[in-house]
Amino acid sequence: MSNILDNTFVHHVHFWLHNKADKAKLIEGLETLKPITHIRHMHIGVPADTNRDVIDRSYDVSLLLLFNSPEEQEAYQVDPTHVRFAEDYAKPLCARVVVQDSVNI
Amino acid sequence: MSNILDNTFVHHVHFWLHNKADKAKLIEGLETLKPITHIRHMHIGVPADTNRDVIDRSYDVSLLLLFNSPEEQEAYQVDPTHVRFAEDYAKPLCARVVVQDSVNI
Repeated sequence: MSNILDNTFVHHVHFWLHNKADKAKLIEGLETLKPITHIRHMHIGVPADTNRDVIDRSYDVSLLLLFNSPEEQEAYQVDPTHVRFAEDYAKPLCARVVVQDSVNI
Repeated sequence: MSNILDNTFVHHVHFWLHNKADKAKLIEGLETLKPITHIRHMHIGVPADTNRDVIDRSYDVSLLLLFNSPEEQEAYQVDPTHVRFAEDYAKPLCARVVVQDSVNI
């Protein structure tokens, strides 16, 4: 039996770079988010080797954040460290950013 | 300091229904996946109330699964319970299914 993530706000961001050579720099930026205490769990990733029709492998970097509540996610949005990441890394480096926020049913 | 999800295979699926009236039925199908032991953590969700330009709120249901390894995810794919879910729920009910699989950098 798998463990169910109850009371979890899922914040998943996928990043598409202007220039794939900037991947390390974007990841360096994502690493700066680690000290933000509002975040419960953090996963910085890249596309896996899986490759089927339904799989989107087009993004360059994935950031999955789990929060204890919608309020913690709101607090993260305005945390100065996150704002700095958005201004210094995400906006200049990325052609496209897509966020999908999900709450438990 | 947030907790870092190391050695984690992130499998995130977003579902778009043919008919929004089938949401409860799709969720019933997702619940059948819970006994699959290959899954480490499972989150069944719907779009949060957040609404900014970068946010995709178009999907109907989200399934986030965390696995201990790519191999566990492969085993999940061919697990009869998962195959039955795909045939009985996902394929007939969904207009679109997008999977994003990510591994740690």
